[in-house]
Amino acid sequence: MRVVVVLAHPNRSSLNHAIADRAITSLHQNGHDVIFHDLYAENFDPILPANEMMSGDFVDPQIRNYGDEIANADGIVVVHPIWWGGMPAILKGWIDRVFRPGCVYAFEEVEGGIGVPVGMLKARKIAIFNTENTPLEMSEEMYGDPLDSIWKKNVFGVCGGRDVFRRVFHGVIMSEDLERKAWLAEVEDHINEFFPAAGMSQAA
Amino acid sequence: MRVVVVLAHPNRSSLNHAIADRAITSLHQNGHDVIFHDLYAENFDPILPANEMMSGDFVDPQIRNYGDEIANADGIVVVHPIWWGGMPAILKGWIDRVFRPGCVYAFEEVEGGIGVPVGMLKARKIAIFNTENTPLEMSEEMYGDPLDSIWKKNVFGVCGGRDVFRRVFHGVIMSEDLERKAWLAEVEDHINEFFPAAGMSQAA
Repeated sequence: MRVVVVLAHPNRSSLNHAIADRAITSLHQNGHDVIFHDLYAENFDPILPANEMMSGDFVDPQIRNYGDEIANADGIVVVHPIWWGGMPAILKGWIDRVFRPGCVYAFEEVEGGIGVPVGMLKARKIAIFNTENTPLEMSEEMYGDPLDSIWKKNVFGVCGGRDVFRRVFHGVIMSEDLERKAWLAEVEDHINEFFPAAGMSQAA
Repeated sequence: MRVVVVLAHPNRSSLNHAIADRAITSLHQNGHDVIFHDLYAENFDPILPANEMMSGDFVDPQIRNYGDEIANADGIVVVHPIWWGGMPAILKGWIDRVFRPGCVYAFEEVEGGIGVPVGMLKARKIAIFNTENTPLEMSEEMYGDPLDSIWKKNVFGVCGGRDVFRRVFHGVIMSEDLERKAWLAEVEDHINEFFPAAGMSQAA
């Protein structure tokens, strides 16, 4: 499998970087090819300009490359912290610019001239790992989890990624070393289950 | 009243721009001072860098200015399209960078060393106008409205903006001139109700 891993966190010593590293190591161990995008390290420009928004095609060849990669991936892994209930701006802009009609979804015209989006992603399996400083109970009580709906319905629901796994690690700012190690082991387990080695997959 | 109006749309001939224009005109007519930020026109940089994230204070003086303005405003109006269930990246990054602890909210320590956010916004009244291309019925059926929760709970709930009004205009891409005119008249009505002229407010 060819798996695209996307990371959005400004701090290289963050838990998010450790999660992405562990996911990539596990994918490699299972024999998969990995394309890794650390959006901060790549200085990704997240601002969708007017000419791109109005165009029916990609305008910037670099953005087209991101689009071709994601459209043709067999699997996708996204790693990011939850800020204000959503994604960091750099990741939101990656969606805004890369997830374009004609690449990851198309409009199918139905009655009344209304266009219904039809997913074009080749990837069926998508894993999302999130971190949040707020402890789980407080988070559930105060905010709920609107981002879950956004990833599963608004983004991957539209693009055809049917099997979306998501895990949120809570209370990160107060977490201790032992807890973080357990979380990283959990990431490895999820990756092994979701993107097993070819032999393992056939044996199952 | 001093009202901050924030707009995030790349196209100057968009309905979003017309909504912001109408809101500003109505606010002026009611005798309010308006501070207007067209984030695209200002080339706002939405990427929260590591040093800002790690700092307990603002690092960039321009971002501090945005923060001081929003903290001291009597009212806030936000205008943006819904992209992938959320805000355009440029607006998400304005929240990420400007809505900082010590400015729009503070942490109050409770039992167990957990910090509970307490809002610091002076503004109690906040109006949000959104546009979406998907027709209302399809939008409700396919996606719900996770952004409503994000604005009201995750963002303004944390910062103390208690009276949040939000209106989403649906089916924008297929809308006709007459419908758009009615929507702009509605914007004016909402602004008049929410931010009335001083005399009107005292008479009520």
